[in-house]
Amino acid sequence: MSFFLLLCFLSVAFCHQQPLNTDLLPRALIIQLPGNLESDSLSEEVRLRCTGWRVAGEANNLSPWKTIPDECVEYVKEYVLGPSYEFDLQMVSNEAGRYAKSVDLNEDGMDAWIFDIDETLLSNLPYYAQHGYGSEIFDNIQFDKWVVEGMASAIEPSLKLYNEVLKLGFKIFFLTGRSEDKRDITINNLIKAGFQKWDRLILRGTEDHGKTAVEFKSEKRKEIMEEGFRIIGNSGDQWSDLIGSFISVKSFKLSNPMYYIS
Amino acid sequence: MSFFLLLCFLSVAFCHQQPLNTDLLPRALIIQLPGNLESDSLSEEVRLRCTGWRVAGEANNLSPWKTIPDECVEYVKEYVLGPSYEFDLQMVSNEAGRYAKSVDLNEDGMDAWIFDIDETLLSNLPYYAQHGYGSEIFDNIQFDKWVVEGMASAIEPSLKLYNEVLKLGFKIFFLTGRSEDKRDITINNLIKAGFQKWDRLILRGTEDHGKTAVEFKSEKRKEIMEEGFRIIGNSGDQWSDLIGSFISVKSFKLSNPMYYIS
Repeated sequence: MSFFLLLCFLSVAFCHQQPLNTDLLPRALIIQLPGNLESDSLSEEVRLRCTGWRVAGEANNLSPWKTIPDECVEYVKEYVLGPSYEFDLQMVSNEAGRYAKSVDLNEDGMDAWIFDIDETLLSNLPYYAQHGYGSEIFDNIQFDKWVVEGMASAIEPSLKLYNEVLKLGFKIFFLTGRSEDKRDITINNLIKAGFQKWDRLILRGTEDHGKTAVEFKSEKRKEIMEEGFRIIGNSGDQWSDLIGSFISVKSFKLSNPMYYIS
Repeated sequence: MSFFLLLCFLSVAFCHQQPLNTDLLPRALIIQLPGNLESDSLSEEVRLRCTGWRVAGEANNLSPWKTIPDECVEYVKEYVLGPSYEFDLQMVSNEAGRYAKSVDLNEDGMDAWIFDIDETLLSNLPYYAQHGYGSEIFDNIQFDKWVVEGMASAIEPSLKLYNEVLKLGFKIFFLTGRSEDKRDITINNLIKAGFQKWDRLILRGTEDHGKTAVEFKSEKRKEIMEEGFRIIGNSGDQWSDLIGSFISVKSFKLSNPMYYIS
């Protein structure tokens, strides 16, 4: 029951249309949190350390990690369910959109934008809410069960960006660590969430198993570039979506304090 | 007078030895802030927006900017004078140190670590405290006056890292946007601050004027690599210290919400 309440809450949090102004700093969406999410119990010291840890992750300063620090579970929960996460997602969407509009596209139709899927276009927050917000070791069997339900909702600021870059004429590549056997459910989920159109959806084939995300995604970007595409923008919630070789002209790192993929 | 009080405060804040434990999250140094620095006046909404803006900067998501957002002046002041900035600097130092120790150095003495100088090894916080914490357009004449005083103190967590990588046997390169005419004063200031030894100090020559920091620093890294050095680590407070071409194996982004260099 509480899971469904959470789903309702998340759908409210992520699915309404928030008018965004054009100031440098978008006006925050102040979501009224359910009382139990307002953790007055988080001491200033824990908040400081966990913010520091989160920001170090966003700046790609951390060595690989498997679970969030024990003391940061409440902090991460508060962050992802509260207004800050959505604000941060809006901010990166706005910055990416501004950049996309500044690009003088070539007329050959070969300017491309890459999007990762999980925690970039689609939110798995309901899953992670049921699994300790990153405090449990990742369980791919349980996660796959969630994925095949095809219930992930759009990350609304990314849907907005997607529509903008699509309209501007970029070729759209979805490049995901999901494996090929999830192709159909991924397509259905994307469409249901509002992502109706793309040029290519690239998933991990059998030949890609055992590769790190950095290796896999760099190889795929290489193939895309060798076809003559110019990868102008790249949006992902993991640094492994963005770094390695054959990187995009400009990368945009979406916030994600819940898990780390090498 | 208040400037000297601030200097005293900063020297206390940056120069004492903080015992760092080896937990994932270092224990925070809780500095007692002078009353007027505890800005209870910062609303939660402003704090949320300014944190979002700061983190977007640390993740390299922002387009170039010249001054911090008006509404974030108090926030940035509170951040850099309070415990969070020092905590964040300790965290990146710890992560870089851990990485440096994990590297299996070659015996040829060609493994190198690059450090930027301003806001990486040396703190210009007393200058920025007198100039609105980044809310004023950068004034190179005024800043040069501060630089030639040679009074910048060490960023202690970076001094700790520097001593570690030096001891591990890395070759040490200092690569700075300061111009050649500041060589002597920079050397004096570095030594006074505790940085006694390095292999090369690279400043902007007359031929480098007009180049962006990304261009200048990429060119210098290219030259270093062409001499046969392997650039293993690179520490800088600006993304322009770290990105471009000929990048290091691992980069470490130190926090800096006060200014942006392209």
